Amino acid sequence: MNAWLASWQRLCNASAVLRFIDINLRGLAQVMLQNHPLTGALFLAAIAWGALAAGAPEVLFGGLLALLTATFTALWLRVDVQALRDGIYGYNAVLVGLALPTFLLPSPTLWACVVLGGAVSVVATLASANLIRSWHLSALTFPFVIVTWALLLAAFAFAGVDSDVPPYAGEVAPLDPVAANPLNFPAFAAGVYHSISQVFLKASAVSALLFVAGLAVSSVPAALFAVGGAMLAVTSAHLLGAESDLVSAGLLGFSPVLTAITVGTVFYRPGVRVALYAALATVFTVIVQAAMNVAFAPLGVPALTAPFVLTSWLFLLPRQHLGEGNA
Amino acid sequence: MNAWLASWQRLCNASAVLRFIDINLRGLAQVMLQNHPLTGALFLAAIAWGALAAGAPEVLFGGLLALLTATFTALWLRVDVQALRDGIYGYNAVLVGLALPTFLLPSPTLWACVVLGGAVSVVATLASANLIRSWHLSALTFPFVIVTWALLLAAFAFAGVDSDVPPYAGEVAPLDPVAANPLNFPAFAAGVYHSISQVFLKASAVSALLFVAGLAVSSVPAALFAVGGAMLAVTSAHLLGAESDLVSAGLLGFSPVLTAITVGTVFYRPGVRVALYAALATVFTVIVQAAMNVAFAPLGVPALTAPFVLTSWLFLLPRQHLGEGNA
Amino acid sequence: MNAWLASWQRLCNASAVLRFIDINLRGLAQVMLQNHPLTGALFLAAIAWGALAAGAPEVLFGGLLALLTATFTALWLRVDVQALRDGIYGYNAVLVGLALPTFLLPSPTLWACVVLGGAVSVVATLASANLIRSWHLSALTFPFVIVTWALLLAAFAFAGVDSDVPPYAGEVAPLDPVAANPLNFPAFAAGVYHSISQVFLKASAVSALLFVAGLAVSSVPAALFAVGGAMLAVTSAHLLGAESDLVSAGLLGFSPVLTAITVGTVFYRPGVRVALYAALATVFTVIVQAAMNVAFAPLGVPALTAPFVLTSWLFLLPRQHLGEGNA
Repeated sequence: MNAWLASWQRLCNASAVLRFIDINLRGLAQVMLQNHPLTGALFLAAIAWGALAAGAPEVLFGGLLALLTATFTALWLRVDVQALRDGIYGYNAVLVGLALPTFLLPSPTLWACVVLGGAVSVVATLASANLIRSWHLSALTFPFVIVTWALLLAAFAFAGVDSDVPPYAGEVAPLDPVAANPLNFPAFAAGVYHSISQVFLKASAVSALLFVAGLAVSSVPAALFAVGGAMLAVTSAHLLGAESDLVSAGLLGFSPVLTAITVGTVFYRPGVRVALYAALATVFTVIVQAAMNVAFAPLGVPALTAPFVLTSWLFLLPRQHLGEGNA
Repeated sequence: MNAWLASWQRLCNASAVLRFIDINLRGLAQVMLQNHPLTGALFLAAIAWGALAAGAPEVLFGGLLALLTATFTALWLRVDVQALRDGIYGYNAVLVGLALPTFLLPSPTLWACVVLGGAVSVVATLASANLIRSWHLSALTFPFVIVTWALLLAAFAFAGVDSDVPPYAGEVAPLDPVAANPLNFPAFAAGVYHSISQVFLKASAVSALLFVAGLAVSSVPAALFAVGGAMLAVTSAHLLGAESDLVSAGLLGFSPVLTAITVGTVFYRPGVRVALYAALATVFTVIVQAAMNVAFAPLGVPALTAPFVLTSWLFLLPRQHLGEGNA
Repeated sequence: MNAWLASWQRLCNASAVLRFIDINLRGLAQVMLQNHPLTGALFLAAIAWGALAAGAPEVLFGGLLALLTATFTALWLRVDVQALRDGIYGYNAVLVGLALPTFLLPSPTLWACVVLGGAVSVVATLASANLIRSWHLSALTFPFVIVTWALLLAAFAFAGVDSDVPPYAGEVAPLDPVAANPLNFPAFAAGVYHSISQVFLKASAVSALLFVAGLAVSSVPAALFAVGGAMLAVTSAHLLGAESDLVSAGLLGFSPVLTAITVGTVFYRPGVRVALYAALATVFTVIVQAAMNVAFAPLGVPALTAPFVLTSWLFLLPRQHLGEGNA
């Protein structure tokens, strides 16, 4: 693998076109915090499968349109070359571009919003990095979350972009948590792989396998934390009595999966203490996801990966208490 | 008193059990920013009285369960020993443990949430301290507020924890501020002592006296600012035309009491300027409490002590303009 | 002009009364980020015209009352003399004092709230400056926004201050974005000048001309960015399909005008890159304004200039990527 990567790097150094492709593939990989072109290629395959299998090619198109816009915007803004080559300016744009056509109906104005969102996501990434630098945190998907919230909420006020979901219309009705069904193995397994694929906003077993393969190419611990995080999230959501359909669709698990990867693999010396700490963070992300789902329901917009971002920052801020730990 | 405290400290140095008790008592005392075991003991008596008199022993149990969980979590996370011994890692957990059984019905899942909340409150305390360190602020009850909001909101989505209050159900109806009744002395007095006891989420005159006694043991100025803050909060809420029942129940006064203690006793040289500044902060906390009550009503969760935290940070950030002042 | 300004400065140095007037005029000018007494005088004329022409003298009175309160509060808090003389402690109070009687009915309690808001706006300005110092940002109108939100929301809970608009009463109904009408020239022109005058919460062509004149006295680029920002905001809001009445009333344009002035004139070397960057920020402010209008509608309070503050901070945080740029 390393030899292959070294050859690829030499080719990228020699060719601006290959370098451009490499940057965009790493942008895809960075959604799950990886920096590897092959991971990006497998993620692209997973996204394409998820979109086309669901009969939603516009989602794939949106993701790529926003990604390319972001890469050009980053070049125009003369960002740090190493960060650009690591894909840091692409991953939030990919998610913006996947989310907008997922929640809004295609129209010329929608594609203008995708381009605008892709460009602003680069500004938001630079701003976030500057904002949190002194705490040694990463921006995670915070730029994606704020740019997408702004565009989805604004869509309710604009006739040019339309939505199936009205804001606080039928929504503001008493919540009635349905008692969880007994969790049989097929429902559990569906919850686990959908929790992984929903990171990219689609429920698909094939996509989930491609995502895990992509993670494993770059980091086996990341792949293990992703799968373990999904299993823990599905189990704890079920034990708390979450609605079974939500659990099986992966809608309470995608943020915890990202938390598990982030908190689980960021420390220098992994071990039992770190694994327990990551597990606590993962379970608390399930709580925060449910809480934000309730709080955002009247607005008619989703919480996106905000639960992941907020919980991960919460658990990474005191990391000096884990950094020196050994099991 | 000082001789007694010195003997107690020697006993704590000699006995791990007494040290453990001392840590937890100081954790109770830190809810009102004091660092004294006797204050904690009196606060515990006040909490016990408030819970048992109201026929709600589960509230006392929740508070103690969360406190013990937090102390063990802090030991596991190898926090700073001096801060641990000062009770810094306990006070937010106490409040989490009191709040959850106050707003949710007892069930095995609820107690699991109390344990989870107690553990996460330690992480949140470490994170908050790291976050605000460069502004020389204290975390106050911010960790309690965010952890409890997450758990209360999430409860609406989980069948395992139940609530009498539905989220944004009957709530989303036009607000109709009832004109304040004439404020006679009994209503005024009830407002004052309930404002003090509601810091720990119960309306009880006996508890209020125990809290003031506990404060006085550690700091007479803190006790005076607590009582003065409560009187000012009740008066200004009444003059603004707040609903009389809310005022008398102390529900517009508990955050202002904490603000008065915090802003009033944090400066090196107290005097008329500082007292006026603390009074302005106390009145503005009444405004922020009313504002957050309105903003949070549709969600079905209370504002907790967020108005205290936000207003105190607002008034402590410019403290260099007060620190050198003399009356 | 410079000779006139030098004479005026000499007069101010000699007379405490003229200095006091100068401080308050500069406080008015700082609403649009200018530091010039003549700008303040023209802004005062614009505010007076807007209020009196609309038959709302209480708005003018509120603005002046809050401004004077803030200046005295700043003197009492012994703020930095140079910042005081630059008008830094006045502009948020002016806006608080204009906003409260715009949204609430006059009453003795209202004027008490204007005085309280003017005083707290100084604390909030000091706190904001301290909070964001290390990012080299300006507080912009953030203190105005938070103080006014608190007072407007609290008014719903107090019988002493009344409002025509109920909180989340009739509001929580499905949003139905009306298709934009064809934008003819009179509607476009009205949108442009109302976008400028709505910075001070009134729709008036005469006021808009006075504001632009006031800007030009201090900075011709600021005047150009204000007019250009208004044109761009009206155009993009219309193209996105915003409701035509909102656009023509300037209600989607006042935040973008402030963003255009702020982002457009803050860089050392203006040029095509900076102008394009400011244009992107201006268009995104339209999006954020629409988004916050939707999000805040159920609460019954306006977003005020929060979209300007948030978007400007977002685009100013990465300014090192623009600071060295030349076109």
